Amino acid sequence: LHARKRIAVVVTARPSYARITTALEALYLRGDVDVSLIMAASSLLERYGRVSDYVPFPIHARVYSTLEGANHETSAIETGLLEVQLASQLSHLRPDMVVTIADRHETLATAVAASYQNIPLAHLQGGEDTGSIDDRVRNAVSMLADLHLPATDMAAWKLANMGVRGRICKTGCPSVDLALRAKSLPPITTIPHGVGPQIDFSGRFLMVLYHPDTREDPTGHIGAILRACGRHNLPIALFWPGEDAGQEIIAKEIRVLNPHVPFQVFKHLPAPEFLKLCDQAVALVGNSSVGIRECAFLGTPVVNVGLRQEGRERASNVVDVPVNEAEIAYAIQQQIDHGTYERCFLYGDGHAGELVAAALMEVA
Amino acid sequence: LHARKRIAVVVTARPSYARITTALEALYLRGDVDVSLIMAASSLLERYGRVSDYVPFPIHARVYSTLEGANHETSAIETGLLEVQLASQLSHLRPDMVVTIADRHETLATAVAASYQNIPLAHLQGGEDTGSIDDRVRNAVSMLADLHLPATDMAAWKLANMGVRGRICKTGCPSVDLALRAKSLPPITTIPHGVGPQIDFSGRFLMVLYHPDTREDPTGHIGAILRACGRHNLPIALFWPGEDAGQEIIAKEIRVLNPHVPFQVFKHLPAPEFLKLCDQAVALVGNSSVGIRECAFLGTPVVNVGLRQEGRERASNVVDVPVNEAEIAYAIQQQIDHGTYERCFLYGDGHAGELVAAALMEVA
Amino acid sequence: LHARKRIAVVVTARPSYARITTALEALYLRGDVDVSLIMAASSLLERYGRVSDYVPFPIHARVYSTLEGANHETSAIETGLLEVQLASQLSHLRPDMVVTIADRHETLATAVAASYQNIPLAHLQGGEDTGSIDDRVRNAVSMLADLHLPATDMAAWKLANMGVRGRICKTGCPSVDLALRAKSLPPITTIPHGVGPQIDFSGRFLMVLYHPDTREDPTGHIGAILRACGRHNLPIALFWPGEDAGQEIIAKEIRVLNPHVPFQVFKHLPAPEFLKLCDQAVALVGNSSVGIRECAFLGTPVVNVGLRQEGRERASNVVDVPVNEAEIAYAIQQQIDHGTYERCFLYGDGHAGELVAAALMEVA
Amino acid sequence: LHARKRIAVVVTARPSYARITTALEALYLRGDVDVSLIMAASSLLERYGRVSDYVPFPIHARVYSTLEGANHETSAIETGLLEVQLASQLSHLRPDMVVTIADRHETLATAVAASYQNIPLAHLQGGEDTGSIDDRVRNAVSMLADLHLPATDMAAWKLANMGVRGRICKTGCPSVDLALRAKSLPPITTIPHGVGPQIDFSGRFLMVLYHPDTREDPTGHIGAILRACGRHNLPIALFWPGEDAGQEIIAKEIRVLNPHVPFQVFKHLPAPEFLKLCDQAVALVGNSSVGIRECAFLGTPVVNVGLRQEGRERASNVVDVPVNEAEIAYAIQQQIDHGTYERCFLYGDGHAGELVAAALMEVA
Repeated sequence: LHARKRIAVVVTARPSYARITTALEALYLRGDVDVSLIMAASSLLERYGRVSDYVPFPIHARVYSTLEGANHETSAIETGLLEVQLASQLSHLRPDMVVTIADRHETLATAVAASYQNIPLAHLQGGEDTGSIDDRVRNAVSMLADLHLPATDMAAWKLANMGVRGRICKTGCPSVDLALRAKSLPPITTIPHGVGPQIDFSGRFLMVLYHPDTREDPTGHIGAILRACGRHNLPIALFWPGEDAGQEIIAKEIRVLNPHVPFQVFKHLPAPEFLKLCDQAVALVGNSSVGIRECAFLGTPVVNVGLRQEGRERASNVVDVPVNEAEIAYAIQQQIDHGTYERCFLYGDGHAGELVAAALMEVA
Repeated sequence: LHARKRIAVVVTARPSYARITTALEALYLRGDVDVSLIMAASSLLERYGRVSDYVPFPIHARVYSTLEGANHETSAIETGLLEVQLASQLSHLRPDMVVTIADRHETLATAVAASYQNIPLAHLQGGEDTGSIDDRVRNAVSMLADLHLPATDMAAWKLANMGVRGRICKTGCPSVDLALRAKSLPPITTIPHGVGPQIDFSGRFLMVLYHPDTREDPTGHIGAILRACGRHNLPIALFWPGEDAGQEIIAKEIRVLNPHVPFQVFKHLPAPEFLKLCDQAVALVGNSSVGIRECAFLGTPVVNVGLRQEGRERASNVVDVPVNEAEIAYAIQQQIDHGTYERCFLYGDGHAGELVAAALMEVA
Repeated sequence: LHARKRIAVVVTARPSYARITTALEALYLRGDVDVSLIMAASSLLERYGRVSDYVPFPIHARVYSTLEGANHETSAIETGLLEVQLASQLSHLRPDMVVTIADRHETLATAVAASYQNIPLAHLQGGEDTGSIDDRVRNAVSMLADLHLPATDMAAWKLANMGVRGRICKTGCPSVDLALRAKSLPPITTIPHGVGPQIDFSGRFLMVLYHPDTREDPTGHIGAILRACGRHNLPIALFWPGEDAGQEIIAKEIRVLNPHVPFQVFKHLPAPEFLKLCDQAVALVGNSSVGIRECAFLGTPVVNVGLRQEGRERASNVVDVPVNEAEIAYAIQQQIDHGTYERCFLYGDGHAGELVAAALMEVA
Repeated sequence: LHARKRIAVVVTARPSYARITTALEALYLRGDVDVSLIMAASSLLERYGRVSDYVPFPIHARVYSTLEGANHETSAIETGLLEVQLASQLSHLRPDMVVTIADRHETLATAVAASYQNIPLAHLQGGEDTGSIDDRVRNAVSMLADLHLPATDMAAWKLANMGVRGRICKTGCPSVDLALRAKSLPPITTIPHGVGPQIDFSGRFLMVLYHPDTREDPTGHIGAILRACGRHNLPIALFWPGEDAGQEIIAKEIRVLNPHVPFQVFKHLPAPEFLKLCDQAVALVGNSSVGIRECAFLGTPVVNVGLRQEGRERASNVVDVPVNEAEIAYAIQQQIDHGTYERCFLYGDGHAGELVAAALMEVA
């Protein structure tokens, strides 16, 4: 008679949660595993949409570690602080496996807390390439992990080449599962929150998501993007930047911008609503990984600005441009002219959650 | 007119100091660089020979982080604690480059503290392979580093294959520089400290160094090794284990052992004395990396016991055996019969320190 | 020949800085002391006015420790995190004396970091009484301190009664020195920043400052205060709450309030401008200690709402009311009818900074 | 219907455990309370007798925080580190009351972790006076506590005078309960462990316990004590010093001492055995609080050396001397001549545990 398996999942940011949701669902649907969900870092914070409030699963522990005054120094300090707290929690819990997702600086804290204690570590989204500090963190986490669940074939191949320990199992990205579900949701017409005039989403509109990148000073970037969008006389749904160092600069610029087109600003939307909006948008402009991953599946045209997604595998729906108003405007026109792309399964076919759950159970 | 370069070197353990000494000397001999030496973790502790007391260079800061009760949990906690303190120190110092050495769990704290703050990180001894948790840490550090200074060609090749960022420059290991110097020291006859009867080192003797390995329960190991040595009726110079998790088990066994041969126990010797002893020993028995690295250069016969050095490149001076008294005893006999080996330059030719200093100055 | 004395001052919040400014000036005017100013916690954060940007003195170190998601748990964590970092910094600096100010939770981190290392600790504002968790922290800090620089005679008497170690020297509060200076500044007419319509400060207006108190749920409080103020048809200068646990609730309510009177919101003003405004206001309403301390000297009528200042010594300029719209409105009317009060030297006569500096130099 | 009360007890050192044992027993004997015992800091460490191994109650969590290389800096760092971990643990647990014991530097971490989170804090052994840094810590903890359970009337009076919050309830010290039990144990003749020749405890012997004090350099102290004992030609039972800063100096001296009298060294004995030995000894020499507290009840003559217990209330069984060989030798002779003292109830009558449990249950 075997003991029930015990799996701990550590979520350290809102986007990570979207990339594990369907795997959590699949684990909960099985009767033979105890899941301990640890919500940490920015996943607990109102400023970043406090995803912990929307989680339908029981939360085992909440671990605060995000420092105010986001800068490069605080990234290092908060990683250490999270490491100390997770080491305590995981030592107490002693699960059969710990799951960490993607590449934010805090993921390395989870990886150290688990692997230094000889608790097997599973890593989702390893082997990708974006050309930023995230690459280093992601690869460092892969080096500490025991089970690798990359999203693409190329990523799996890179992990093998890197010489990581343990099994590599390509699963696709669970966030694409949510994109598949969004396809069958009814169209959105208006969203009665956010700041600014309500956009009529049954018409044509652009979506803008732009996050800071650790390698660049983001001063002036969001201004260039929004002026470029403004040239096309379409309403803009703008999303607030994430919590990386440099975020304050972008947020400040957004506060003083005054584009002449209708302009609604959202901090966060629930994943289904957000992905449906991606599905409906004429184009998505900015540097979010959503443009690369979920939009490949959705077929939404994407204008990818700047270096942040550099090196990441992309489908034909993405046009890359530097941070330059004219170039961005021109690419948007190209994408408007092209219209929706064919669905592409590069980052998964919508059933990654089940594959992740199965791999975790087999190896844990 | 250029500003003087500023290089910070973080030493977190006694062996790491031996692997950077000649590079520090070479940096100090140049007039154009400020070196900030940070001594941290076990390098400050009496139990591990407090190497900070013997350092001839000015010490910029002493950072305490080693927890008592060494176990797997404390490794994770102390890495986090060191990260917090080093992040503060390096943020204040803002050097042009930070140097970290080898693969102990604390090295990842240095790597995070520097790389998350965009301070270029140089890593010595990357790309090696020992089959233990150290491999993971070493590779994770390599993934965060910007300048790689591996000891061997094979290690350089592995780093390139892994896809690390930045330059790779094979320098050899500075610890071999000390082995070269030891060759020209006068022979040691006795050492008037250590516990137990003084051995006459002008005669034939065995050296034993055995450290815990995170993958194995070390219970009974040191007993098997010492009984195997005892069969050869040679005096034994035994060195106290390092501070890894599991160290207490070995230390306890040493305290109750009572071999019938002369048996002198050392906690630590200064590097020159220690290496001279390696040079004079009939054979070195155990699982220390000194057997693999410095002894390759010295030509000392080595009986390498157990998994700890598994996968590490070795010269012909090493015979590998499992933790089994008879096997160890047989291998010792083989090595006694063979006698001293040819000098091998696998881990350097004795001039690595200068190469390391030159590479740091070029890239910083 | 004596060595120059070395004094480290740790500032962990904007208000603390105002309470040490003139003492820092007095220390810098002497030629015989080295001052190391350490800015920590919320004093570094934009959200709390980043007082570190306005400090005219050199800053020795910046220590980040404030966690996002302010709640009771994070107070404890951030105190520990600050303790670790300050212990490192002070061990490196080894000053002759460390100065800590007042009673925020972080002050205990400074007190532990200094006193546990046998570095003499000076404490300003000990011996006061406000009936909140601050009392406990303040008294705990006094218990660790070696030199006590209370603001009032009563506070000095309480410290003596408590049985603290070391000398007690009543100095008055250096923040009153700034109030004295504000008296001679030209009147303010408008302030061209802040949110909302610009108030004409040459006319009559009310000032509102309301902070959360750890013992009460602040829901509804700021609403009651602002409606009470609105009954008097005077413009309102409203100041954003400080960073205590509970601050988000007040901030949220402020965002949705829509009083019918002119209403300008400030995050922070430089101390001289702020105190001049206090001097000009018809009355100050809320629970800020400024109403109790600086306004006693300025003679500004104060309506003190709720428990936060309970137990603090006050002059006749303060009327106390519970959190009740009608009571607050009635008390405002009383204060309007009374008009400005006589200047009272309860918290100092405007020369505390010099007394603090002299005491520090004598004891350090 | 009331929920069961939940009480968390945090033990951070071996002596603290002895001072809460009978209260824990009394709580467990009640059916209406859940006790969460958290073992932290040196209570987990082999070097200090790992009291966690001997605890008959379930241990809720083990929290490692003790740094190696005990010095003044590490005390501050480890307090911060413990604070972070306990804040996490207590936030997760949210008990109705947290219990902390006595005055070691780590107790302040427990006090902050609980009181900053508004969890009521009970403090045993407040209000005492020893003239060392411990006084400051003890008083600071009292200032943060909500329920005070002092051992003596004088301590209760001091707490009241200090102006602490909450109830004060004199209970006596639960360690005296163990002394009462020891009275009815059969006499000890030999103890077959410890280092050195086995003493015949059925004969006359001296006991020595000497701990470092933060205010003094302990160099030479233990030597003076042991030479003074040696003059009386009685065998000596010597106990290893505790883990305060300075402990290494004493430990080193003990290792090189070579008194001419029989001399058996113990790291730790279980409390019953230890107290029985105190009961049998001709005299106890040193600076342990056991001499002041338990020995008052037992009537054992005590020669109290140096400043460490200065200011602590004492019964007539104690003779105080400075650290001076002749003075110590003379006082030992006085005590030998006097013989056993009358039982004194200054620190309790042997039923403190029940009183502590009752007070906790009433207030929690």
